[in-house]
Order: sequence, then C-alpha cells, then structure tokens
Amino acid sequence: MKELKNRILEDGKALNETVLKVDTFLNHQVDSKLMYNMGTYFKEYFKNHGITRILTIESSGIAPTAMTAMQMDLPMVILKKQQSKILNGNVYQTTVHSFTKGSDYELTLSKDYISKDDKVLIIDDFLANGEAALGAARLVEEAGAKVSGIGIVIEKSFQPGRSKLEEKGYEVYSLARIAKLGKDLIEFID
Amino acid sequence: MKELKNRILEDGKALNETVLKVDTFLNHQVDSKLMYNMGTYFKEYFKNHGITRILTIESSGIAPTAMTAMQMDLPMVILKKQQSKILNGNVYQTTVHSFTKGSDYELTLSKDYISKDDKVLIIDDFLANGEAALGAARLVEEAGAKVSGIGIVIEKSFQPGRSKLEEKGYEVYSLARIAKLGKDLIEFID
Repeated sequence: MKELKNRILEDGKALNETVLKVDTFLNHQVDSKLMYNMGTYFKEYFKNHGITRILTIESSGIAPTAMTAMQMDLPMVILKKQQSKILNGNVYQTTVHSFTKGSDYELTLSKDYISKDDKVLIIDDFLANGEAALGAARLVEEAGAKVSGIGIVIEKSFQPGRSKLEEKGYEVYSLARIAKLGKDLIEFID
Repeated sequence: MKELKNRILEDGKALNETVLKVDTFLNHQVDSKLMYNMGTYFKEYFKNHGITRILTIESSGIAPTAMTAMQMDLPMVILKKQQSKILNGNVYQTTVHSFTKGSDYELTLSKDYISKDDKVLIIDDFLANGEAALGAARLVEEAGAKVSGIGIVIEKSFQPGRSKLEEKGYEVYSLARIAKLGKDLIEFID
C-alpha cells in the first residue's frame, strides 16, 4: 500500500534495528482517513474469502479494523487483554507472551460473539513475533471456527511472525512489509 | 439518537441499578455502521464549535471516535492508560480513578499531539462518574488548549458525571441519556 509506505517513510521513526515508532498516524495520533483506506485494501484482498467476522486485539488495531468491518459490512469483535485469568465459563481465553513488554497477558473472547460456522479475518496493527495473532487464532479454533486470513498493517519481515503463521497454514496479507530497520533506516520488501 | 436507543433496548442488558452491558454492539462486538452513524451525530452537533482535534481514551471509545474524526476531517489522539507513571518529559500525565475497577491508572498524552491553539472534542463511550473525561480535560488544559466539547455515547444521567463536567464549564452532548437502570429495566431521559 503505497500511501502507507510513504507515510512510514515520512513520519515513522526507526529507533533501532527492531523498534519502529508510528505514533504520528497509527498508535497514538490516528489518521482516520488513512485507516479508512487501509480498510479498502483489506476488503479488496479478502473480499472472496467468505469472511463472516473480523477480530482484532485492543487497542491499536481497532481503528483500521472498524474501517474494514464497515466496508465489508461484517461484525467485528475486539479481543480483550486481561492481566489475569477470569473464572467465567462464557469466554475463550489464552495466554499470550508480549516480547515488547516482556510479560504475559490473557486474550479473551466471549463465546457469544463467535460460532463454529464463522470464517474469521484477524487484523492487527503490527506483526513481529506473531504471538498475538497466534493467540487470536487459537481462540478462533477453540470455538471450532476457521481462520480465513490474517491482515496486518505493518509487518516486520525480519522477525519470525509471518513464517510462524504460515507454518500453521494461515494466509497473511500485510499492507507494508519492512525488510530492515536501523537508526534512521527503513527498508521495505518489494 | 433513536437508532442507538433502540439498540440499547434490544441488545443492552441492565445487570443491576448501575451496570449496563452493551457488549453486543459497543464494547466487545462492535457494529461499525452504528459507530459511523454516531460519528454523523457528533459531527452535526459539534460542526460549528471550531474543533481542531479529537481525543478519546482507549479502548472502547476508539471506534466511534475514528468514525467521527473521519467525517469531521480532523486528527484524533488515543489517550493511553498506563499502570504507573512514566518518567518521560515528553508527555502530559494525570491520575484517574476508575470506580468500575476500583483502581487508579495514568492517562497519558504526548506533547507532540496537542498544541495550545487546539480546540478539543473529547469523545468517550460511557459517562458515569466523569473521572475519565475530567482526566482527559486536565491533560488538554495542561497543554494550554481548550476543551470545546465532550461527546458521550451513553450517559448514565443518574450518576454525577454530567454535573461535574458542567460545573467546570464544559458542554456535554450524549447520544443516549439513561435516567434509570434496574434488573431488566432501562429508561431514557426525553
């Protein structure tokens, strides 16, 4: 997605070889029109996948996912991050390790908002180690539903997330794929 | 907003005299078209207020705020909830007490994404005790900017949030105002 790549080059900040800050338009300040345009790209790519439901993880994935859900006319569900296990029979829950924060959290999905017939698109803002997307996929499969695609805004292609997801048989579509980061260096794949 | 009130009556669940669950369309599963329509209402109400920037608090306010920001063609900023103080000179930070969770958190706004000339609209999903909105307003004023309005999706009018905000001189516009909650009872103002 050319508009996104240009924006990353203009406003993104590579702090080191692994950290890219995009607080200017995605994670803190949000450019809602860019989010809408991301939704158009996700719709275009996944429109023939038979998707019935879109899942995202709070909170930076919410804006682009809402824009995608609106354009695809589908329900979306925000997976909640909890500090600890809730003892409640009505939820699916799985533990996810965050390499960024160096800690674990529980990803939670109510059984009311997924069914075994669902074909699910998972959307997230970043793909790095793939732990969050794998956790979301575990919840979908625990519900007996199918992961029909994974949509990522920014993929750090030098980290193992994509290959871990592809090993599980998931199709990954990323709007921007970063080959290399370094101090004041951002290189894309393509 | 009639569509929202109808949806609350159809899908909302009053658990007791203070708790209204709207997980079906706002807090966990999200109806993105309803969110878009909320944006249209907020735009219509605030279009002559000279707003330059919209703030919301993660995470349930993000979807309606993104839809509003897109329609008003304005930047939005997601205030982050942190567990504890960050020692970083580049942020405004204030402590907010959550009555729902019985704990405090730090609301954080980067100095990069607000200026003293901004006229800010604060949008949030619920108004009950007003602590979150007051916290957001403190950050805006600490930056020397002006709070030009507060937009709320669901106001619990039987709790003191609105009067606390109005005492400070803020204009509050709520899409649905709830007069009374009880087991299987939801009554609106108007």
